[in-house]
Amino acid sequence: MPGKFTFYTSTIQDKNALFDENETRHAIGTLRFKVGDQIEFTNGLGDYYYGTINNIEKRLFSAQIHKSEIHPRKGLLTIACGIIKSTDRMEWMVEKCTEMGISSIVFFDGQKSERNKLNLERMQKIAIGALKQSHGAWLPNIELLKWKDILKLEIKNKWIAKVEVGVESLPLTFSNPAEAHLLLIGPEGDFSETEFNDCIGLNFKPVMMGKNVLRTETAVIAAAASFYLSQN
Amino acid sequence: MPGKFTFYTSTIQDKNALFDENETRHAIGTLRFKVGDQIEFTNGLGDYYYGTINNIEKRLFSAQIHKSEIHPRKGLLTIACGIIKSTDRMEWMVEKCTEMGISSIVFFDGQKSERNKLNLERMQKIAIGALKQSHGAWLPNIELLKWKDILKLEIKNKWIAKVEVGVESLPLTFSNPAEAHLLLIGPEGDFSETEFNDCIGLNFKPVMMGKNVLRTETAVIAAAASFYLSQN
Repeated sequence: MPGKFTFYTSTIQDKNALFDENETRHAIGTLRFKVGDQIEFTNGLGDYYYGTINNIEKRLFSAQIHKSEIHPRKGLLTIACGIIKSTDRMEWMVEKCTEMGISSIVFFDGQKSERNKLNLERMQKIAIGALKQSHGAWLPNIELLKWKDILKLEIKNKWIAKVEVGVESLPLTFSNPAEAHLLLIGPEGDFSETEFNDCIGLNFKPVMMGKNVLRTETAVIAAAASFYLSQN
Repeated sequence: MPGKFTFYTSTIQDKNALFDENETRHAIGTLRFKVGDQIEFTNGLGDYYYGTINNIEKRLFSAQIHKSEIHPRKGLLTIACGIIKSTDRMEWMVEKCTEMGISSIVFFDGQKSERNKLNLERMQKIAIGALKQSHGAWLPNIELLKWKDILKLEIKNKWIAKVEVGVESLPLTFSNPAEAHLLLIGPEGDFSETEFNDCIGLNFKPVMMGKNVLRTETAVIAAAASFYLSQN
């Protein structure tokens, strides 16, 4: 039997889990799992399952669940990030944020973004890959929102990371890691003056991401890491 | 005059800085800087300079320094990391660690590493690129060491990140960010039993990188971010 893997499915009914074509290709096609093999899997919503493969078809397979655990999480971090130019960098960011259990990644088309589209389906695929690889139980919610809808998000702790010098900012620390947090990080060109002022008007607190000028995806990953490690 | 850039040179004599072929290609070739233009640059050793370009030749240019600042840093973090299979992932790791001002990145050929060579020169080039882009003043020292030489590093706080369950581990937190720290992170296959025991015998403390199983480069970046943000 192949080594330890965590598979993903959103289709669970009672004691039975059904896996889609992608998972079938991976588990059965690549890893050569067989009927009767034990597998581990998650629904990405905090439930982690142990089961036995009981049926394999061409494009799907199923498993009988014999044990499940809830992986609790203390706090929630939503990172809203301006779309950046490089797809690679955004995909890497999604992979890392998923490994570190961020609850939500929201992209927005900032006034200074150099591009305004992204392939959400591909991002979700990357997140599933990272979830499986890290044996996690929480799949981040990945969305593309308009700026005005970002401003409407109702989350207790609201922060905006601003690069420009001259704004009085707090250092980024998760002193209440059990609460819900929203952190906005701008695209390469940073936030526009209007975007920044919108946020300040809505009681977002400006935070400082250290002394260097981090790339967008570095700032996102740094915040994710800080949050992840604060949950220890 | 082009926007704000930070150039890099290791050749500074009195009030004169000399830039090499790479920097000349970037500053003069790509960005079209001219004699008389103001530039900012660093030696990667904590000094940040302001100067004026006073001479341009085909493969080099120089600048007269009129102001310099020291960018102090409180603590030091050396991350020693097993060589991993993917060059992309290692390069990305070097880029991120440089942006976040890590003092030293040491690669070693772990017993479970799937490869044992890497192009140090290329890694250093990537670090210089990241230093310039982040307007930092500290270039990490990048080395390839044998395992036995890793064990000889004399650094006050010595930690080893272990994935395996069952070892009693501390959470990774930099409660003394002003001190010197060494953190060992294994390759994809983790440390071998022997490597781990070597470290415990030398008073390395096992640390836990959260609840998920992070990829090698994710663990490295997470530690770097935690250290970087603790210096705020």
